[in-house]
Amino acid sequence: MTTINQNYLELQGSYLFSEIAKRRTAFIQNNPNAEIISLGIGDVTRGLPSSVLNAMHAAVDELAEPGSFRGYGPEQGYDFLVKAIIENDYKSRGIDLALHEVFVSDGSKCDVGNIQEIFSNDAIVAVQDPVYPVYVDTNVMAGRSGSFNPDTKRYNNIVYLECTAENQFKPSLPTQKVDLIYLCYPNNPTGMTLTKDELKVWVDYARENNCLILFDSAYEAFIQEKDVPHSIYEIEGAKEVAIEFRSFSKTAGFTGVRCAYTVVPRDIKGFDAAGNTVLVNDLWNRRHTTKFNGVSYVTQRGAAAIYSPEGKEQIASLVNYYMTNAGIIREGLASIGLEVYGGVNAPYIWLKTPSGMDSWSFFDKLLGEAHIVGTPGVGFGQSGQGYFRLTAFGSLENTEKAVDRIRQLTL
Amino acid sequence: MTTINQNYLELQGSYLFSEIAKRRTAFIQNNPNAEIISLGIGDVTRGLPSSVLNAMHAAVDELAEPGSFRGYGPEQGYDFLVKAIIENDYKSRGIDLALHEVFVSDGSKCDVGNIQEIFSNDAIVAVQDPVYPVYVDTNVMAGRSGSFNPDTKRYNNIVYLECTAENQFKPSLPTQKVDLIYLCYPNNPTGMTLTKDELKVWVDYARENNCLILFDSAYEAFIQEKDVPHSIYEIEGAKEVAIEFRSFSKTAGFTGVRCAYTVVPRDIKGFDAAGNTVLVNDLWNRRHTTKFNGVSYVTQRGAAAIYSPEGKEQIASLVNYYMTNAGIIREGLASIGLEVYGGVNAPYIWLKTPSGMDSWSFFDKLLGEAHIVGTPGVGFGQSGQGYFRLTAFGSLENTEKAVDRIRQLTL
Repeated sequence: MTTINQNYLELQGSYLFSEIAKRRTAFIQNNPNAEIISLGIGDVTRGLPSSVLNAMHAAVDELAEPGSFRGYGPEQGYDFLVKAIIENDYKSRGIDLALHEVFVSDGSKCDVGNIQEIFSNDAIVAVQDPVYPVYVDTNVMAGRSGSFNPDTKRYNNIVYLECTAENQFKPSLPTQKVDLIYLCYPNNPTGMTLTKDELKVWVDYARENNCLILFDSAYEAFIQEKDVPHSIYEIEGAKEVAIEFRSFSKTAGFTGVRCAYTVVPRDIKGFDAAGNTVLVNDLWNRRHTTKFNGVSYVTQRGAAAIYSPEGKEQIASLVNYYMTNAGIIREGLASIGLEVYGGVNAPYIWLKTPSGMDSWSFFDKLLGEAHIVGTPGVGFGQSGQGYFRLTAFGSLENTEKAVDRIRQLTL
Repeated sequence: MTTINQNYLELQGSYLFSEIAKRRTAFIQNNPNAEIISLGIGDVTRGLPSSVLNAMHAAVDELAEPGSFRGYGPEQGYDFLVKAIIENDYKSRGIDLALHEVFVSDGSKCDVGNIQEIFSNDAIVAVQDPVYPVYVDTNVMAGRSGSFNPDTKRYNNIVYLECTAENQFKPSLPTQKVDLIYLCYPNNPTGMTLTKDELKVWVDYARENNCLILFDSAYEAFIQEKDVPHSIYEIEGAKEVAIEFRSFSKTAGFTGVRCAYTVVPRDIKGFDAAGNTVLVNDLWNRRHTTKFNGVSYVTQRGAAAIYSPEGKEQIASLVNYYMTNAGIIREGLASIGLEVYGGVNAPYIWLKTPSGMDSWSFFDKLLGEAHIVGTPGVGFGQSGQGYFRLTAFGSLENTEKAVDRIRQLTL
């Protein structure tokens, strides 16, 4: 009898997106001529920049002949890409990293999902609420979550750090001992950020309390304001206590091309049961080389092209396109008195639903009356109740049209 | 204090390939003019077929414009690829599979490494010896292996199924209760296969003893003989007890392009602690969608092109190229009285070292006297001691030259 990983039974159904799809389908059946605009998904829609396309074509050509063919590459990524990452994303901000501190992967979802494996199964995990579900689900699978409490709709052994308008979506420090803290800035879903001083509080806390920050920075490219740190390593001492996750998905339109990277500094110390020091970098390297076989060569060449002068300009223009949409949504909604957050340093707009509606009621109203699909905030956690997420990843035309429709609603 | 996953400390150093690199480097330092030929690595060397290249170029072009852009795809793979897989790799052999029984991934190494996650941590694991190290290492990381015994050089809780010349590299059934059995056919490293009748013994055993077969079939494309099954599902009842792993890496030269797939039939039942049935397909789907974000669109289009009429011809020609090499090695070595195995249905040749030399002594002799790098069999497990692996993935010219050199050795 093959027994299964019992922890999987504690996973809650991925209710959010299936429920959205269900309600959308039902609406379309009753309103076959409605022109629905989706501001719900977190996926990009623009074409890839020509610098990336050219690099990918050239890489495909290289694979044609034995002389230039590339088979297995280094699991951690080719040096040409790792060097470009370090030079452009870190050294330019005064942060030194060694080649073997950067691990190229096929996606941040994989990395933030897999990272927990290298830590003890009894580590106490803290997450922001609302939260990207992968942090929670992967810890449920590993058995760190404890049972799901149907009353609180939370897992008993996970520490939830609430982020609401009351605290400007800036969580308080944990009041109990935790080992791993997932922080996401610029935040998905709220679109909010921390200043350097605010992030320093977390780094100092981690150093004083011997915990580790898992810093998901997938939306870094969208930062516009000066005082918002682009990397957690801009904070002194962070290299001892933080792992940083970055992605090319939203930065460069790589959601279908698949490339990301994770920084695991050699300064991070873990401890075994006997109290001996073990370098977390060594553990991640072992995991990465044992369970992963490197990113497609074609993809890595495409990613490296982003760092060319032409690539940088094109990426900036892509980011600007989406941030223009974000501004249109943000200002359009604010102009009719809605309480809106995010959208300044992130492609997500987080709004407080009007008149105390719950998230799903607002979903139904927006779909029914404006033919717009968004994402109910409660889908990201209990602290998301009464909030709603819109994304800036649509076309400019659809974004303008959607905002016009919302402005005409009676709220 | 962040405590680590203590199981990682039981991992043994990846001694094999670092030791090979060390001895090779030392040799080159002392013999800078020697022309070394590597028949050691398991990586392909030919260029990609034009059908694949054309499909990849076309896919890159699609990503240029919003109208044809592809962002996130289904984590399980696009239907166009899954349908091609089912139609060509299974239906053509009389095997019916549903779309949701096939999971496209970025590599078999990932899949065979990750599959253990969905089973209980106290599952008893059986592996062939010699063995592809990933099966063992990923179970060590999960805590299923028990301690490493430095005397036997084996893990205490893993069941090793010995494969030597004495049993024609066909392991005996386990004599103790096991839950998960990793079988690899055509085998890496021995290059040997099972007939249908021989594989049926394992399927029947698994059905009678409620265990699961994890069938690694990465080298399926190299099968030449009629009685060798291409899929474990050719055996009646296998859909209830076997997960099958396939790869495009060696089939089509995708080691740097990254694509594979795993078949998890809906008929496989797992059991929770209370004895309730849980579909293993559901568990793997949940794992795959939570920790993985799909294979690069460009790669998937390239993989699908393999199934076009032109693609099939080109793949057959690639396989033929490598199998010609295999024949040259096999026959060349046999002609001087060496005991050789494999190389008929697989790109690996497994030879018994002459005069009772141990694997590393033969490595040194081959490198020192013939300037050829191969892989010591003992690196794959204790039952590989006194054996040696050569691969057929080099160029025809180098393969012929290498065999000529070996023929001139005094053995």
